[in-house]
Amino acid sequence: MSTPVQAPEAGQATAPRRLGRGTLRFLLPPKVIAGFAVVGPMEGKGPMAGYMDTTLEDTYYGERCWERTESKMLKEAVQQAIARAGLSEQDVDVALTTDLLNQCVGSSFAMRSVQVPHVGIFCACAGFASGLALAASLVDGGFARAAVVGASSHHDAAERQYRFPTELGIQRPPTAQWTVTGAGAVVVTGGDAAGPMQITHATLGQVRDMGLKDPYDMGSAMVPAAAETLVRHLQETGRRVEDYDWVLTGDLGRVGSRILIDWLKERHGIDIDGRHSDCGAMMYDASEQDVHAGGSGLGASACVVSGYLFKAMGRGLVNRVLLIGTGSLHSPTTHFQGESIPVVAHAVCLERPGTR
Amino acid sequence: MSTPVQAPEAGQATAPRRLGRGTLRFLLPPKVIAGFAVVGPMEGKGPMAGYMDTTLEDTYYGERCWERTESKMLKEAVQQAIARAGLSEQDVDVALTTDLLNQCVGSSFAMRSVQVPHVGIFCACAGFASGLALAASLVDGGFARAAVVGASSHHDAAERQYRFPTELGIQRPPTAQWTVTGAGAVVVTGGDAAGPMQITHATLGQVRDMGLKDPYDMGSAMVPAAAETLVRHLQETGRRVEDYDWVLTGDLGRVGSRILIDWLKERHGIDIDGRHSDCGAMMYDASEQDVHAGGSGLGASACVVSGYLFKAMGRGLVNRVLLIGTGSLHSPTTHFQGESIPVVAHAVCLERPGTR
Repeated sequence: MSTPVQAPEAGQATAPRRLGRGTLRFLLPPKVIAGFAVVGPMEGKGPMAGYMDTTLEDTYYGERCWERTESKMLKEAVQQAIARAGLSEQDVDVALTTDLLNQCVGSSFAMRSVQVPHVGIFCACAGFASGLALAASLVDGGFARAAVVGASSHHDAAERQYRFPTELGIQRPPTAQWTVTGAGAVVVTGGDAAGPMQITHATLGQVRDMGLKDPYDMGSAMVPAAAETLVRHLQETGRRVEDYDWVLTGDLGRVGSRILIDWLKERHGIDIDGRHSDCGAMMYDASEQDVHAGGSGLGASACVVSGYLFKAMGRGLVNRVLLIGTGSLHSPTTHFQGESIPVVAHAVCLERPGTR
Repeated sequence: MSTPVQAPEAGQATAPRRLGRGTLRFLLPPKVIAGFAVVGPMEGKGPMAGYMDTTLEDTYYGERCWERTESKMLKEAVQQAIARAGLSEQDVDVALTTDLLNQCVGSSFAMRSVQVPHVGIFCACAGFASGLALAASLVDGGFARAAVVGASSHHDAAERQYRFPTELGIQRPPTAQWTVTGAGAVVVTGGDAAGPMQITHATLGQVRDMGLKDPYDMGSAMVPAAAETLVRHLQETGRRVEDYDWVLTGDLGRVGSRILIDWLKERHGIDIDGRHSDCGAMMYDASEQDVHAGGSGLGASACVVSGYLFKAMGRGLVNRVLLIGTGSLHSPTTHFQGESIPVVAHAVCLERPGTR
C-alpha cells in the first residue's frame, strides 16, 4: 500500500517527459480539481449510488429520445464539473470528450452549449483514459491552463445502435455486458494548484486483434490489450504492481476481469488479484441487478473516476490507482462483414498528491 | 507574401506556449518530415493527381467492401509516411488517426497492422487538423519523439452510411459535396529535425450551431465555425491574414467557400479573396468532374496536406498556410430526429522553416 507524504519527488522538474513509446511522465503532475457524475435510475441503485452527483428518475431525463438524454447528461457533467472547480467556461482552455454514438453525437451535441474549444476523441471505452492523458499533456506542456475531460454512454441508445431495439427484449448471453447510462467529467488544471487527485503518468496502447468476433463477449476480447498496456507501463515507469492500491480496468466486466487476472499471472508472473477492480463491474450489484457480466460503456469509467474515485482520494481512502481504459473498436457494420474485434487499452496513473 | 529566411525568431524559446484559449504556440516548431497520400480513381483524374503517391485503379483496391478499402488506404498512407521519413514503426511514439465511419473503424482496422500506440480522434472533417495540433503538442511538449497523423474517407462507404446506397443513384442538389476517396498521413517530429514543413501554431475551435439542418449543404453550415476560428487565431497570434500565403479550408466546398469570403469581409473586414483555397474544391476539376459543390471528407484535407502541400513547400512554392479543418458533427440519426448540424473548425499554421 502506497503512503501519502507531502514532499514532491526529488529531481522531478528535470526528469524527461517521455519514458517510453507512448509512456508519458508529467513533470508537475496536473491536478484534478473537480468531478461530476450523472447516472441513470438503474445505476443509481448500484454500489456507486452514494458517490454519484445526479441520478435520473427515468431513462429519458425530460428528453424525447435517448440520444438527447445522453447529450444532456454529458452537458450537465461538464458544466457542473467546471462550476465545482470554481471556474467559468472562459477559464477552461480545452474540452476533450468522447462517447459511443455514431459520429460521437453525444459529445458534439453536448458541447454546443459549452463555450470551450473542443476536440473529440474516439477510442471506445478507452476514451476517458485517453482524454485524461491528452488533457494532462496539454496542461503540463503549458498549452492550456485548464481542461475538462468528459465521457458518456446510455444503455438504450447503445443497445439500439449496437445490438437490437430494447423493445424487442432479445435474450443476452451470460458474457454480455450492460452498457451504463451515465456521464462523468473532471477538470484538470496546472500542477501548482491544490486538488485531491493528480495525473502523474500515462501509457498509450497499441491496437490489437486476437481474432475474437463475439460482440457479446467484449471483455474477453479486450484482455490482451489491457495486459500489454499494463506490462509496458510497469516496464517503462520502473514500477511494480504493488506500487498501486488498485489496477482499475474499464470495462472488462466480470468475465474479462477473471481472464485478465489469470493471463497476467500465467504469462507475466504479475499478481493483481485482490488489487484489481473493474469500473463496469463496480457499477452494479451482481446479486441483485440482472446485468450478466457487469457494466460496460464510457459512462462506467467516467462515473467511477469523476464520481467515486475523486471523492475517495479526497477522503484519503485510496492513494494511487492505475486506470486502464479498454476499448472494443468494432462497429455493427464490421461485425456483419465478418470482421474480428480490434481492441486498445490506455492507462493513466491517478494518485493522491504526496503519495510515494 | 511571406518570405523565407533561415534564422529562428528571437526569444522563441522563452515565449509562452499558450497564446489564448485553445491557441497554442509551439516553442520549437515540430517538423513534418514525410507525407503520403492515397486516392481513388476519380481523385486521380483531378487537379491534385500529380502530387498523389498512390492512385487506385478501382474503388475496391482488391477488397470485398469499401470499408475495408478505406482501412487499407489509411494503413498504406501511415506505413508509407513512416517509411519515407526513414523511420521504423518502433521509432514513432504515437499515432493519431481519424475517419468518418461509425466507431471510426477506418482508423481502428488500419491501426491493427501498425505497431504504434494509437489514439483515435473524431471531429468529422476537422479531424486531420486537430490531429496535427495534438501531435505537435505531444512532440513540442517532449512527450513523444515522433508522431504520425492520418485520416481517410471513402466516397461509397460514406454515401451508404450517411445518405443512400450508391446503387440507388439518388439525385443530389447542387449544394451537395462529394466525399473524397482518399487517405493521407504525415510524420511529425522534433523541431530540431530538418523538414520542408513545420507546425508553428494551432487554434482549436468551439462547437457551434446556427440552426442549419440540411445535410446536403454542409459547407454553409460550417462557415460560422471557420470564420470564428480564423478571427480568434488572428487576434490571439497578433497576425493579419496577409501573413499567410493561403487560408486553406477543408472542406467548405465551393458554396461554403463563397459564403466564407463574403462573411469575413462583411462582418469582420477581413479579405481572404484571392488568398483562399478549399481542400475539397481542389480535389476535382469543376468543369469536367460532376461533383456539384466540390469535395468533402477527411480524405480531402489529409491528401492535400500530405500529398500536395508537403511537396509544394519542399519546392519553395508556398511559405505559410493556415489550414482550417471544418467538421459537421451530425449523424444520420440526429438528422432523422430533426436536429440541426453542430459544426467545429480547428486551425493549424503550416510553414516552410525560416518563413517570417
